[in-house]
Amino acid sequence: MSLKIFNTLSKEKEKFVPLSHPFVGMYVCGPTVYGDAHIGHGKSYISFDVIFRYLKFLQYKVLYVQNITDVGHLLGEANEGEDRLLRQSKIEQKHPMEIAELYTRSFFEDMDLLNVERPHISPRATGHITEQIELIEILLEKGFAYENNGSVYFDVSKFKEYGKLSNRKLDEAISGTRVETRNEKKSPHDFALWKKAEVEHIMRWKSRWSVGFPGWHIECSAMSMKYLGETIDIHGGGIDNQFPHHECEIAQSESATEKQFVKYWIHNNLVTIDGQKMSKSLNNFVSLKNLFQKFGPLESRFFILQSHYRSTLDFSEEAILSSKKGYEKFLNFYFNLIERKTFSQTSNKIEVEKFYNSFFEAMNDDFNTAKAIAIIFDFIREFNSTISENKILSEENFSEIKNFIDTTCGKILGIIPNKIEKKISTDEDELMSLIINLRNELRDAKHFKFSDKIRNELENLNIVLEDTKEKTIWKKKN
Amino acid sequence: MSLKIFNTLSKEKEKFVPLSHPFVGMYVCGPTVYGDAHIGHGKSYISFDVIFRYLKFLQYKVLYVQNITDVGHLLGEANEGEDRLLRQSKIEQKHPMEIAELYTRSFFEDMDLLNVERPHISPRATGHITEQIELIEILLEKGFAYENNGSVYFDVSKFKEYGKLSNRKLDEAISGTRVETRNEKKSPHDFALWKKAEVEHIMRWKSRWSVGFPGWHIECSAMSMKYLGETIDIHGGGIDNQFPHHECEIAQSESATEKQFVKYWIHNNLVTIDGQKMSKSLNNFVSLKNLFQKFGPLESRFFILQSHYRSTLDFSEEAILSSKKGYEKFLNFYFNLIERKTFSQTSNKIEVEKFYNSFFEAMNDDFNTAKAIAIIFDFIREFNSTISENKILSEENFSEIKNFIDTTCGKILGIIPNKIEKKISTDEDELMSLIINLRNELRDAKHFKFSDKIRNELENLNIVLEDTKEKTIWKKKN
Repeated sequence: MSLKIFNTLSKEKEKFVPLSHPFVGMYVCGPTVYGDAHIGHGKSYISFDVIFRYLKFLQYKVLYVQNITDVGHLLGEANEGEDRLLRQSKIEQKHPMEIAELYTRSFFEDMDLLNVERPHISPRATGHITEQIELIEILLEKGFAYENNGSVYFDVSKFKEYGKLSNRKLDEAISGTRVETRNEKKSPHDFALWKKAEVEHIMRWKSRWSVGFPGWHIECSAMSMKYLGETIDIHGGGIDNQFPHHECEIAQSESATEKQFVKYWIHNNLVTIDGQKMSKSLNNFVSLKNLFQKFGPLESRFFILQSHYRSTLDFSEEAILSSKKGYEKFLNFYFNLIERKTFSQTSNKIEVEKFYNSFFEAMNDDFNTAKAIAIIFDFIREFNSTISENKILSEENFSEIKNFIDTTCGKILGIIPNKIEKKISTDEDELMSLIINLRNELRDAKHFKFSDKIRNELENLNIVLEDTKEKTIWKKKN
Repeated sequence: MSLKIFNTLSKEKEKFVPLSHPFVGMYVCGPTVYGDAHIGHGKSYISFDVIFRYLKFLQYKVLYVQNITDVGHLLGEANEGEDRLLRQSKIEQKHPMEIAELYTRSFFEDMDLLNVERPHISPRATGHITEQIELIEILLEKGFAYENNGSVYFDVSKFKEYGKLSNRKLDEAISGTRVETRNEKKSPHDFALWKKAEVEHIMRWKSRWSVGFPGWHIECSAMSMKYLGETIDIHGGGIDNQFPHHECEIAQSESATEKQFVKYWIHNNLVTIDGQKMSKSLNNFVSLKNLFQKFGPLESRFFILQSHYRSTLDFSEEAILSSKKGYEKFLNFYFNLIERKTFSQTSNKIEVEKFYNSFFEAMNDDFNTAKAIAIIFDFIREFNSTISENKILSEENFSEIKNFIDTTCGKILGIIPNKIEKKISTDEDELMSLIINLRNELRDAKHFKFSDKIRNELENLNIVLEDTKEKTIWKKKN
């Protein structure tokens, strides 16, 4: 049983063999920090977070680099028009670096809430201007780039394999995409490595070509190679970055180094909103901060992982509400599990191993979290039916089960609430068990006036008591 | 009544007049991120946080920039020896940028806990290599610097005012300080602007002089001028940075621009541990994370603000324990204030205005937080004595008082716990008031067995009930 990854470059599921076992270098395109992250960012970074976690679980020594794009590249598909950070800085009347600071912080806040582990290095594009300039110098020296009027462009005709990732031929590309109109370029396919800054462009650096700023694509080539070497194991990103961004990264990097840039390209699919693409014109972006007002971050994470990373995920309130029910079922199961304090010496036992195997089989099949979660629910079903038949399990079996869930749902999928949340609820737990014991004693003493009063007042606080055979449990109403 | 600031440059308290009212540019030297922040960092950034908050309160439009030093400058006073980030990266077997990432995050975690507001821009030294190189070029062009063997040095003899901040003459400096031994320098006073990298030096950038890295001082000149202009209103830092760091910053910046670099220099004094200087050799650094295991972050903040920023603060467990009592007294007062729900229509009234005046007088006198806190305690004393004489205050007066405390202790001093903590305790509050009501009703019904049981079981949870004339209140034991 070994890990297979769908490689966008070969369009096939390939066995994962890192360049230099057990080390894995992984680079994922990070956000452009000019606004709050939306649910599309959520899907992308949760997908790669699970990939990161799973690789670590498989004992690989992963170095995970995810950049922060704090140079405000031009708006629009054609990479022309207004600069995003500059535009936002005008709206908020702040320096572009203040905008970048603000939304970088906002991004990590959201990611922390989504239980996305931090990458090892989060390099900023503005922090790597010298490296980008150096790479452009190499491309100029080797004849892959040309300067015109203070700007430098990559000459796409010089890189014969251009299009190998996205399977586009140059002719198709030109008809399929709005192309840049700057007449400094030899061909409309060529893309900017360095742009001379207009007067009003605040983010600008000196280079020997002009006071200007780097093109969008060059930062990822420069930063991934700086931290992970000239050939990297895994490069990830949203499928919308496949063309032109990743295609251009390949062209730049492979022209400069004459080596393969990336062994495994991984692309996550996009989020649609009620069946429609998220877009500026439809104004249907759902920010994570807005989402969290209605749904918990871990509910959202669970929702996202219920579909495969290469599938589109349709976001609708209905869909997430139904997923929320599943997550609550999981949490109920989990809290029952950890609160269990009575065990039997009987031989009843749930075989955990077969569930382990199916779980890993799903994960090894190109990180199929949708299937992996379904297997967890198969397990929960078996667990619940065993429990409900009053077949009390042994302490040893409980501990196996707890390990299974902590590994699969905690370590790998990251859907178990973290310690802090647990700690908070502990205070509540203690007070609640005091109240419940008191109520049961009052009831035993036939002081029903008081025992009923307790139940009613708890209901006012949205807390419901349920008397089971073993004990009284409490739940919060929604 | 106007703000006076002790300006290290003039060694006098000066009236604060910003260069371009109402805008204030403030730059504070940030941490070198190769380890967890210690209590000395706590004192420094809390001091400047209160300065930042007070300036904003006075309606200045402040732009606050605080750098992150993620280039690992050389160890030791003489700026020679091993590179700090490099050394740490060997110990932890991580890339220097991973070390920087880790401890930058750790730094902000601690600062957030200390209720230190984030600066608007936190520029990284590695993010401003081009800007530093540009500044070095200007110094070379103007003849203030010279190149030797791939390194560039500032020629201190060319800047006649060298020593004006720290009041050192060159002769004193040489006898008082270990000086660098590299024989590339014309004079031992000269300091590096750019250093050629040794083979093992990982953090390195190309420049026309060598593959190397910037000297320590140049980053602050480059970054402060980039975001705040050639002359800035306020430059802050620890008094240990006065020489050589700030002296060198002045030399570089004023030589390059031929303008005054900083109008007001503010230096906070240091923390001593049981009367001794914190130092590597004594191994007596107290990290904030360790401190927080024993004392709450806001208790620590309160402790620090109880001395003036220009005084040394001696840290001993005794001192902070006694300060902790003061903080608890403040919190008790504050929670009583916000929980108050009964008011009278009588004419009893505490005059708030005189306390406002004394508070602002203290803050206007070079941000004297020690005195400001004493005034708050004068107020609390008057408040408590008024209340204890059963002179119940009007709702209007309570609201004035609450405003006074929220402004002085919340907005300006930042010692009121934030909303999140309040929210958590709300759940607890609700359950506790349910329990307390129940206990009182059981007692009224003479079911003492139950009412006593409640009191005892709460005690087991470290919660104590106190019956006052008005109502029963609860407290957590420490």
